Amino acid sequence: MKSYNEYSKEELRLELEELNKKYKEYQNLNLNLNMARGKPNTAQINFSMPMMNVLTNDDNYIASDGQDVRNYGDLPGIPEARKLFADYLGIEPEETLVMGNASLNIMYDCVARAMLKGVLGSEKPWCKYDEIKFICPVPGYDRHFTICEFLGIKMIPVKLTEWGPDMKTIQELVKDETVKGIWCVPKYTNPYGGCYSDEAVKQLASMETAAKDFRIFWDNAYAYHYVYKDVEVLNILDECKKAGFPNRPYIFGSTSKITFPGSGVSFFGASKENIEFSMKQLNAESISWDKINMLRHVKFLKDLDGIKSLLDKHANALRPKFDIVLNMLDTELSGLDAGSWVKPDGGYFVTFIAKNNCAKRIYQLCKECGLTMTEPGATHPYHLDPDDSFLRIAPSYPSEEELKQAMIIFTLSAKISTVERLLNK
Amino acid sequence: MKSYNEYSKEELRLELEELNKKYKEYQNLNLNLNMARGKPNTAQINFSMPMMNVLTNDDNYIASDGQDVRNYGDLPGIPEARKLFADYLGIEPEETLVMGNASLNIMYDCVARAMLKGVLGSEKPWCKYDEIKFICPVPGYDRHFTICEFLGIKMIPVKLTEWGPDMKTIQELVKDETVKGIWCVPKYTNPYGGCYSDEAVKQLASMETAAKDFRIFWDNAYAYHYVYKDVEVLNILDECKKAGFPNRPYIFGSTSKITFPGSGVSFFGASKENIEFSMKQLNAESISWDKINMLRHVKFLKDLDGIKSLLDKHANALRPKFDIVLNMLDTELSGLDAGSWVKPDGGYFVTFIAKNNCAKRIYQLCKECGLTMTEPGATHPYHLDPDDSFLRIAPSYPSEEELKQAMIIFTLSAKISTVERLLNK
Repeated sequence: MKSYNEYSKEELRLELEELNKKYKEYQNLNLNLNMARGKPNTAQINFSMPMMNVLTNDDNYIASDGQDVRNYGDLPGIPEARKLFADYLGIEPEETLVMGNASLNIMYDCVARAMLKGVLGSEKPWCKYDEIKFICPVPGYDRHFTICEFLGIKMIPVKLTEWGPDMKTIQELVKDETVKGIWCVPKYTNPYGGCYSDEAVKQLASMETAAKDFRIFWDNAYAYHYVYKDVEVLNILDECKKAGFPNRPYIFGSTSKITFPGSGVSFFGASKENIEFSMKQLNAESISWDKINMLRHVKFLKDLDGIKSLLDKHANALRPKFDIVLNMLDTELSGLDAGSWVKPDGGYFVTFIAKNNCAKRIYQLCKECGLTMTEPGATHPYHLDPDDSFLRIAPSYPSEEELKQAMIIFTLSAKISTVERLLNK
Repeated sequence: MKSYNEYSKEELRLELEELNKKYKEYQNLNLNLNMARGKPNTAQINFSMPMMNVLTNDDNYIASDGQDVRNYGDLPGIPEARKLFADYLGIEPEETLVMGNASLNIMYDCVARAMLKGVLGSEKPWCKYDEIKFICPVPGYDRHFTICEFLGIKMIPVKLTEWGPDMKTIQELVKDETVKGIWCVPKYTNPYGGCYSDEAVKQLASMETAAKDFRIFWDNAYAYHYVYKDVEVLNILDECKKAGFPNRPYIFGSTSKITFPGSGVSFFGASKENIEFSMKQLNAESISWDKINMLRHVKFLKDLDGIKSLLDKHANALRPKFDIVLNMLDTELSGLDAGSWVKPDGGYFVTFIAKNNCAKRIYQLCKECGLTMTEPGATHPYHLDPDDSFLRIAPSYPSEEELKQAMIIFTLSAKISTVERLLNK
C-alpha cells in the first residue's frame, strides 16, 4: 500500500471523501460497541463455574493446619493458598500473603501505608517529604497512576519499549533521594504487550538508588496469561536478592483473570523481612481476609499446573479476538503510515500508536460512530500523552462479530484522522 | 455473703490458704481453656451452612440491575445488597456501600484516608496537623485503639457507663479543633455490654464541635445481636440529620457475626453526600468488592427478617453460655466485694471490673492455671488501664463444659487477688 505521506493534496482530498462516505455508512447503523474494557468475556468466566461446587454444605472447611476457615484469624492466609500462590509467583510461601478480592486494593494500601508510616528501612513516612516521586513507564496502567495522583505522588513518565522501560533514564532518575518507587507490569505490559528483558530486570534489581527505601511495585497481573506465546520473565525477587537488595520488590497478583474478576483472591509477594514488617502494619487493618474463598480457589485450581491449564483455555478464547484486531490493523493500515501497533504475546491489550496529534480525534470519531474506546491519555500520568498518539484496544470483552465491526470503525477513524492531519499541515 | 472488706487479717489469711488449695487442685488438672476470643462457636457458624448451596454452578449470577456479578465493576455494591444492608442499618440504599470481608478494614481505611486526604469539609488532610485526637470511650474495643495508635492519632479516654459515654466530658473535649473523631459501639458496647441511651445519641448528634470535619465512627457491630433483650438504640444518621450535622456519622457493620466471621460482607453507611465523596476517594483503591459473595448473602439472608431470625438462633446458642458466666459470677462473687460486672443484653462480652490493681494479677493467675483471658489493658488506649481493673470475658467460643471450669478458675483468681490486695494494704 502506498503511504499517505506520498499522497498528493488532491489524492488526500479524494481519499478523505471516500473514507468519510464509508464512515457515514457505519454511523447510520447506530452501533453500540465497546473496546474499552479490559475484562474477560462471559465464556472465559464460565471456565471457572465448576469452582462454585467445590465448597458446599457437605464439604470440609478445615485447612491443612487444622483451622476452621469459616472463623476469624490467620492474617497471612491459609497455608495451602500461600503455597499455591507462592508457586505461582515463583517464590516461597513465607514470602507470600494471600489477601482480599483484588490486587489493586493491596497496591493502593501498600503505597498508602508507605505514605503514612514508611516501608521497612524508611527514615520517615513518605508523606513527611515535601514531595516524593514515582517512575511511571508509559504507556502504562491508568489505575497505577490514579493511586499516585490521589496520594499526591509526583509521577515521572519514562518511555517503555517492547523490552521494558528506558533503563538509562531510570538509572539517572533514581539518583534523586525522593524518587521512591517505580510501577512495573513486567509481562505482557499493560497496555503495550511487551515483556521485560532479562537485562531490564537485572538492571532494575541491581541499580544503585539514592533512596534506601526505594520499592519496585511489580504488578505481575499477567504472569501466565499468554495469548500467543508464554514468555519467560526473570524473577524479580531472585534478582534483587542476588544484587543485595532483597527488600526492593513488592510483587502483586490476583486470580481476577484466572477465575472471577473481583471475586477471587489476591496475593502479595516480598522478602521474608518485608512480609514480617508488612504483617505488623497490616495488623492494624485486618484480622484475616476471606479464607473460605481461599480454600475454594485451592480446591478448584489445585496446583500451578491447574492454573496453567485453565489459562490455556483463556488463551484459546482470547486468541481469535486478538487475531481479528491484529489482522484488521494489518490489512487496513499496513504501509499506510497511519499509525503503528505492537503484537503482544499475551495480556489483555493491543496498543495502537497513532500519528502524532491523532489519538483524541480517533477516539472522537469512534465515539461518534458508536464505538467506545479507552480515553486517550489514560495510558499516561495525569492523562497527559504529549504526542496525543496512544490508544488502548481491549479485544477481550466484545464478541468476534462486534470486534470485526469495531475494528472497521477504528481503522477507518485512524485513516481519517491521519489524512485530516496531512491536509491541515 | 460477708464482704472481704469485713474480714479480719486472720480471716483473710485463712481464706487465702483455702483459695490457694483449691487453685492448686485446678492447676494440677493441666487445663487448656480460653475465654479471650470474641468469636462465634462452631455451632453458630453451622447455622449459615445452607448459604454454601445458594450459588452453585447451576445458579443465576445476574444481579437485579442486569449485571453479571462474576465480572468487574460496581464500586458501591450490587443493588440488592445495598438495599438489604441499608434496611439493616435503618438507612437508605444510596446511603450504603457494601464492601469487603470485614468492617475493621473499612474503619481503618476511613481513618487512613482522612489522614491522607481529609474527609468531606476538611480544610486539610488530618496528617497535616501537628496532632489530632480521637475520643475513646473506655472500656472499649482494642482494634479501634490499634488503628489510632498505628496512625499516630492521640487517644483521649472517656468513661463509658451502661448508658453511653460521659457526655459532659465529651462536650468539653470537642471544643478543641484537633479533636476529630470518636469511636462508638452504640449497642451492646464492646466489651461493656450496655446500650447508648436516646439522650446520649441525641447529644452526640447535636453537640457543637470546634472541628467542622468531626466524625462519629459508629461501629454498629451488634445491631441485632441480642442475647437477652433486643434494645432499641436511636438511629445516629437520623439524629445527626435532625441536628443539622448530616455528615457527622460514619456507620460500620458486617455479617461477621451473622454468617461467617471474616468471610462475609461489610458495609458502610453515611449521608448521601458523604457516600458520594467517599466513592470518589475509593475509586483510587478499588474497582469493586466481591459481588459473588454479596449475591450469596442476599440469596441466603433474603431480608431483614431473615437476618433477625438467624440472629434468634445465635441468641439461643449464646444465652446458655452467658448464663453460665453470669450465674457463676453471681454465685461465687456476689456480696464479696471482689469485683463487679455488667449484665449485658447482647453482644459478645461480659466486662468484669476487678478491685483496683487486681486485673493483671487475675490475668496471671488464670494463665498459670491454664486459662487464657484477654490481656488486661486491651480495653484501654495504649493498653493503659489506670486502675488496673478491667477484664473482658468472652463466653461465645468455649463449650459449656469448658466455660464452667473456666469460670471456676476465673472467680477463684478474682477472690485470690482481692484477698492478696487486702492483706498487703
